[in-house]
Amino acid sequence: MDEFDIIRRYFMPAVTRRADVVAGIGDDAALLSVPAGHELVVCTDTLVSGVHFPRHTPAAAIGHKALAVNLSDLAAMGAQPAWATLALTLPDADPRWLEDFAHGLLALAQRFDVELVGGDTTRGPLTVTVTAQGLVRHGMALRRRGARVGDRVYVTGTLGDAGLALRLQERASAHLQARLDYPEPRIEAGQALCGFATAAIDISDGLLADLAHLLASDRLGAIVEIDALPRSAAFLEVHETPGAGAQPAYYELPLSAGDDYELCFTVPPAHSTAVEQRLEHAGCAATAIGEITDTPGIRCVRANGSGYTPVARGFLHFGEDQHG
Amino acid sequence: MDEFDIIRRYFMPAVTRRADVVAGIGDDAALLSVPAGHELVVCTDTLVSGVHFPRHTPAAAIGHKALAVNLSDLAAMGAQPAWATLALTLPDADPRWLEDFAHGLLALAQRFDVELVGGDTTRGPLTVTVTAQGLVRHGMALRRRGARVGDRVYVTGTLGDAGLALRLQERASAHLQARLDYPEPRIEAGQALCGFATAAIDISDGLLADLAHLLASDRLGAIVEIDALPRSAAFLEVHETPGAGAQPAYYELPLSAGDDYELCFTVPPAHSTAVEQRLEHAGCAATAIGEITDTPGIRCVRANGSGYTPVARGFLHFGEDQHG
Repeated sequence: MDEFDIIRRYFMPAVTRRADVVAGIGDDAALLSVPAGHELVVCTDTLVSGVHFPRHTPAAAIGHKALAVNLSDLAAMGAQPAWATLALTLPDADPRWLEDFAHGLLALAQRFDVELVGGDTTRGPLTVTVTAQGLVRHGMALRRRGARVGDRVYVTGTLGDAGLALRLQERASAHLQARLDYPEPRIEAGQALCGFATAAIDISDGLLADLAHLLASDRLGAIVEIDALPRSAAFLEVHETPGAGAQPAYYELPLSAGDDYELCFTVPPAHSTAVEQRLEHAGCAATAIGEITDTPGIRCVRANGSGYTPVARGFLHFGEDQHG
Repeated sequence: MDEFDIIRRYFMPAVTRRADVVAGIGDDAALLSVPAGHELVVCTDTLVSGVHFPRHTPAAAIGHKALAVNLSDLAAMGAQPAWATLALTLPDADPRWLEDFAHGLLALAQRFDVELVGGDTTRGPLTVTVTAQGLVRHGMALRRRGARVGDRVYVTGTLGDAGLALRLQERASAHLQARLDYPEPRIEAGQALCGFATAAIDISDGLLADLAHLLASDRLGAIVEIDALPRSAAFLEVHETPGAGAQPAYYELPLSAGDDYELCFTVPPAHSTAVEQRLEHAGCAATAIGEITDTPGIRCVRANGSGYTPVARGFLHFGEDQHG
């Protein structure tokens, strides 16, 4: 099977066809119309087998995740996803694997009206790079920079699930495994925050690491109330079941495990109620977990007011998203 | 060295800063302004070590080529390059290698006013994916589709040099080696063709393979005058020197070897003179090599009128650009 067969057979039948795609797959490059009054939002993320996902990960999950981690970056900017290109390096062209991979990627693309407009298939060790593009109204993008002292710090969804699934491996529940394999980009939440949140970032490397990036942009600090961190029922169940496997680190995983792809954002107190209502309307839970301070660094406190020193600071070593 | 150090140290000092980049490296995604009246042109290409370049290729050449092959796709659309993202997968973070790689990539970026607006560094087998973006006036892009019966077929530059360098390996002359390692994207030529050429494609897989893609778009055929194919002085020197190494296949390499990254395009006879003048003004040689016919397929003829049957059809197997 040559590369043209791969494209034709697995990726051309994609359902999503956008009116703003003048030329998609099949020319030297894609030709796209950007609507007036909008800015273009572009990000790229690579997944390497054995580094970013375990080698036995189902192909559909790899396809989903390769697009999802990019859509998560678009979500953190408040953008509406539009187009993606796929650079797929494969050791061989296994039809069953390709079918599942394409299905995982294209199903997510269809949900968010993303058209696959180009790509490249090459032979080599399994590596997937997606470049995603979205649109945002001029001047309305969420940025990492912009938080102010006194802003509340929020996160969407729950934290630590993906890290717990990685730790439990085959003993992870279906919910935890799905949180690791099929992360849900918080697109609607990001858009609901435009004009209300002062700063935003997606949590790919762990809350502490990513919040630190947000703070560093403005030389600020934060207090994080670690008992307020949102944990899923599946997470708490493992925590509360003796002998259910590796006990989750109740504080550490939500603070430091990566791969959750939730949003972390800051909101002035006067906008808190509006933001909570907007997110509820967008169908996305959000939890206030702390406050921005003028003392650089992150201080973790328990509900009883005592301090907590995190063991790890997140997945910061060479090997992750440069926008990280 | 973590990934943030890599970005800061090697890629942040890039000279190119464009006014249309609202946010570049350092946020969740890049934020870019597309000027009114323009369309966005997007392409992506991956280079895998040992597949797309020999393992001993200098890092600077890999950096140059990773961007150049993408700019070549933009050239084939007649686009003005603007932005690029880099997904770099590395077995380790060797400072000397990174410095050379970044220099090769950024020097070319600077020449064409391309700003590196984002990327991702990951650990794994050496793989480089660049996604390049350019701009073209609304409706003015060159396409693969559009050739008409009777149009003349042209190519820029010379053909077969890169293929000959690959064949000669360490015995290749400096010129031939540079043609393989440092391909020159024909950006000015592509722009000069907008409004004059009826169709265009870049030659990455070999003339026959890429011309076949152009023809297939319109179910056309072509006659190629194989004695007219442009060959460099360095190519002819090897051909004419007995014992200088592997003799170049005088017809086969210009017809079927990849990696030349010249443009192949079609021009109505009435526009030939204008196109030749425009390309001369753009500083790019071009040679008429044949004519479009209504009989599907490519027929190769010698100067004496006799037919020639090519041995190979180009680098078509699984492992190359899906835009091909």
